[in-house]
Amino acid sequence: MTDLAGPSRRVGIDVGGTKAQGVALDPAGNVVATAHRPTPRGDGSLELLIEALADLADELGCGDSIGVGVPGLVTRSGVLRAAPNLDGVADFDVAGLLSQRRGGVVFVDNDATCATVAEWQLGAASGTDNMILVTLGTGIGGGLVANGALQRGMNGFAGEFGHMVVDPDGPRCPCGRRGCWERYASGSGLAMLAREAATGRRLQHVVRHAGGDPQAVRGEHVQAAARDGDPEAIAVIDEFARWVALGLSNLTNAFDPEMFVLGGGLASGADLYLEPIVRWYGELLYQPHLRPMPRVEFAAWGPLAGAVGAALLASLR
Amino acid sequence: MTDLAGPSRRVGIDVGGTKAQGVALDPAGNVVATAHRPTPRGDGSLELLIEALADLADELGCGDSIGVGVPGLVTRSGVLRAAPNLDGVADFDVAGLLSQRRGGVVFVDNDATCATVAEWQLGAASGTDNMILVTLGTGIGGGLVANGALQRGMNGFAGEFGHMVVDPDGPRCPCGRRGCWERYASGSGLAMLAREAATGRRLQHVVRHAGGDPQAVRGEHVQAAARDGDPEAIAVIDEFARWVALGLSNLTNAFDPEMFVLGGGLASGADLYLEPIVRWYGELLYQPHLRPMPRVEFAAWGPLAGAVGAALLASLR
Repeated sequence: MTDLAGPSRRVGIDVGGTKAQGVALDPAGNVVATAHRPTPRGDGSLELLIEALADLADELGCGDSIGVGVPGLVTRSGVLRAAPNLDGVADFDVAGLLSQRRGGVVFVDNDATCATVAEWQLGAASGTDNMILVTLGTGIGGGLVANGALQRGMNGFAGEFGHMVVDPDGPRCPCGRRGCWERYASGSGLAMLAREAATGRRLQHVVRHAGGDPQAVRGEHVQAAARDGDPEAIAVIDEFARWVALGLSNLTNAFDPEMFVLGGGLASGADLYLEPIVRWYGELLYQPHLRPMPRVEFAAWGPLAGAVGAALLASLR
Repeated sequence: MTDLAGPSRRVGIDVGGTKAQGVALDPAGNVVATAHRPTPRGDGSLELLIEALADLADELGCGDSIGVGVPGLVTRSGVLRAAPNLDGVADFDVAGLLSQRRGGVVFVDNDATCATVAEWQLGAASGTDNMILVTLGTGIGGGLVANGALQRGMNGFAGEFGHMVVDPDGPRCPCGRRGCWERYASGSGLAMLAREAATGRRLQHVVRHAGGDPQAVRGEHVQAAARDGDPEAIAVIDEFARWVALGLSNLTNAFDPEMFVLGGGLASGADLYLEPIVRWYGELLYQPHLRPMPRVEFAAWGPLAGAVGAALLASLR
């Protein structure tokens, strides 16, 4: 879709490990155009990425400003400090380089922070002043709105909920510690819980979905078996849901939000996960009789959340 | 101290389980008067408490407004929903009743929130926009300043860090769950770690401080033995410090603060606790090479923190 427009059109791009997804929003917040490019890999990929972003912005008809979401720790001035899924990133000044390349103002933030903005401004949490987004994907990311403002923290690193330790004797995390929340409550966590349960000839229905090899079991196999009505798969999802709820309950004690929005890849199984997560959350909530129970919902935006939120960054400043 | 003054004098009162402590601040934030009353107990104690607060305010020379800190969950409109250490509290409208009794505006907030305000505005965190106070007492309380604003959450219940679950198989907490942070990282937690270590004839020096009974060991006995240089007591403090640091690291991932201030009763042992807490915090911090390490300091205000912060509540609205 090539369609030039004035500054009232807002463009956002979400840079992922495999592609950079762009959207254009009209003033009412409707998506009026989408476009994407593969994420460049290998030597020189960061220069190529800046080119791809400029190219996408031109195609989407960008006006004065553009927003970009990137997967990693982003400083408050828009520098990507580190990004495990992009090649060669170390203090990559996305905002400065893209602005140099094509003029205009560039806003850059963490991809989960962008998704938070999308759900807060135009999605499941629209109208709330206190909300938390938790992305349940391979790992766990998130973002936080408190008192009607997006909270980035001192360095821009707020919302790294996945590395909250919930069991110091738990499995080793690539971050170097043990028992981080994302070891249990992410897609990888669901797979681990399933592989643990699959030992000793249990969970055979799930293992069949994984081609017969217990070590090949992934979250999607559990999901498929649960959809077939397999009680062992449903029990694994219940255990997974308890871990998700445990972290939500911890975050509730810290922030006292009005609602949680759950996003990320596991949103595709919302029909399986939501009921047990909400049930366990009710069990684990501190002082439930003294507070309205915060709402827990899956995200309204699917894979476009990051790009939509990136497009909205300019209006938050 | 009886000294009447105009509205430029700010009065705050911190209601604890045993006494209500009042202070008057001059416009520069200096404590110019203090006074206290015993906290009434038993039947009719809440009416008597309102009388004691009015009496203290009069003695301290209150002008137009007064701030009160109370130990429990406080709604944003100043209603105390529940308070385990006060008799008969259920939806106790401190702000409304005290204002009815003596006129003027009354601001009420949680005691740890008040202490947060004191440390942020006039204490160890003065000048920061992103800070977390953690009170290490019998349990753990706390408060949070993000983006230059005190964060109360949706209901006013933000900052209940003590009930963050850090080990779902851990010891039972009075709140009904297992492995809450305050089971390990509070005064009760220190005592529990010491009693565990004291089995099998270990920790004899600490047990001597407790009068010879391992089950009577409390935090102060560990502290006394550590001050004598007893290596087993120092090892228990090191384990305690690791639990404190684990929670600080979890909160860092969520909020990305510039600094932590540690208050509460255990602040009296700051000389023993600070070094191991900071060391473990450095070990447990996520992505330590990508961020300045947040500062960790003990509170500048001692037992007056809550009253001083209560006196400052009016200036935050």
